[in-house]
Amino acid sequence: MKISLIGAGNVATHLGCALKAHDHQIIEVFSRQLENASKLAEELDAHPTDNLSQLNANVDLIIISVNDDALPQVSQSLPETNAIIAHTAGSISMDVLAFHKKHGVLYPFQTFSKDKKVNFKDIPILIEGNSSEVTESLQHVANSISNTIILASSQQRQQLHIAAVFACNFVNLQYAIAEDLLKKENLPFVLLLPLIQETAHKASQLSPQKSQTGPAVRRDQSVINKHKKQLENDPEMAQLYQLLTDTIQKKFK
Amino acid sequence: MKISLIGAGNVATHLGCALKAHDHQIIEVFSRQLENASKLAEELDAHPTDNLSQLNANVDLIIISVNDDALPQVSQSLPETNAIIAHTAGSISMDVLAFHKKHGVLYPFQTFSKDKKVNFKDIPILIEGNSSEVTESLQHVANSISNTIILASSQQRQQLHIAAVFACNFVNLQYAIAEDLLKKENLPFVLLLPLIQETAHKASQLSPQKSQTGPAVRRDQSVINKHKKQLENDPEMAQLYQLLTDTIQKKFK
Repeated sequence: MKISLIGAGNVATHLGCALKAHDHQIIEVFSRQLENASKLAEELDAHPTDNLSQLNANVDLIIISVNDDALPQVSQSLPETNAIIAHTAGSISMDVLAFHKKHGVLYPFQTFSKDKKVNFKDIPILIEGNSSEVTESLQHVANSISNTIILASSQQRQQLHIAAVFACNFVNLQYAIAEDLLKKENLPFVLLLPLIQETAHKASQLSPQKSQTGPAVRRDQSVINKHKKQLENDPEMAQLYQLLTDTIQKKFK
Repeated sequence: MKISLIGAGNVATHLGCALKAHDHQIIEVFSRQLENASKLAEELDAHPTDNLSQLNANVDLIIISVNDDALPQVSQSLPETNAIIAHTAGSISMDVLAFHKKHGVLYPFQTFSKDKKVNFKDIPILIEGNSSEVTESLQHVANSISNTIILASSQQRQQLHIAAVFACNFVNLQYAIAEDLLKKENLPFVLLLPLIQETAHKASQLSPQKSQTGPAVRRDQSVINKHKKQLENDPEMAQLYQLLTDTIQKKFK
């Protein structure tokens, strides 16, 4: 397929590389900063541009990976085209692209960082199209780069997105807090890695519902009190500890 | 070494199996419920008992793996012995065992569930002894079952324990919340597994400090507002979402 990318951030970069690696042709890369567009375009053998209205309309698919807030304006600035216009945002309805005849969503469900390679084959891709023709085409593209393709409504995708905030963003926050706590006692973060891996692994083998351990679920009030005392110099951390402990005790009865 | 185990819970079970597999001899297993002691003792070719004061004192090491609250009483009920008495509790000072001539701590830093096998070689073990002789003996035992042995004070161990509550217990809570959110839209939990694995992997490769993604750290208020609206039927979840978002925004500037 001939594909153009709007955006040159983490998602556009990883997606663009996976598409090129599976024999799709990337035609243009747009970014508001021409420098960013050029950098990614060079990697993908594509043309860089910072002018949306001049975009080459003669492609099969235009993928928009920009900040959610920018989506409506980007959608309206695109030239008229027969290409499918698809965005990659978890929390935005497909309808933001309703201005275009053929539109849909291709949402790769993973956390992307510039410096960290990912294996796209393992990344679930959620698909939605405004017609069965569009849905099929998006399925076809997604199938070429991933083993797990799921048809999902905008509402389902939005629910998955908020679940991801808990399972990824809020999880990383817990890791970062743990890292800080260890630093205060000159202990290395690597000490935590087997525990972190096992916790992730256990959730996938047993389900989180069956994997909860620790003082909160054991109702071990003396340990809980001791921990709160250790955190008393950091009232925000103590408050967070208490709220998370309360939530565990309500959830696991 | 000749070793006896006080307790027949998750830690005692996994530790006992690892010790036996590495040619230590397990002499006795104590549990207040003789049935539990018998079950584990059978697995370890040991004698079961529910009578602490009658414990065979003629061993090298007695490992106490009981609920934190029970530790002081168990310590006082043990017969006089030349054996090293060591507990396995992260958050309890070594001094709880000061009643005994040779005492220390052997804290395997991992989350244990009965039904989930773990590879002890990968589990860091924190060691503390009340004399260099005790410390060396505990190091020797720990070395026979794990590749990572760390000498740590009671204070360091307590800090590691609270860090583990964040990096394991509170992390599993986030997974469980995500699972519930998906259920509401009939989406399978397996969808989240690549994200969960990648989040854990990224933290170990890049450090959590560099791995934070999502609407909170991007200050993407429109997504945050949308998520809070999605959670408005569950005020506790909405409160948790807000507090975790605030914490991320203060922590990552």
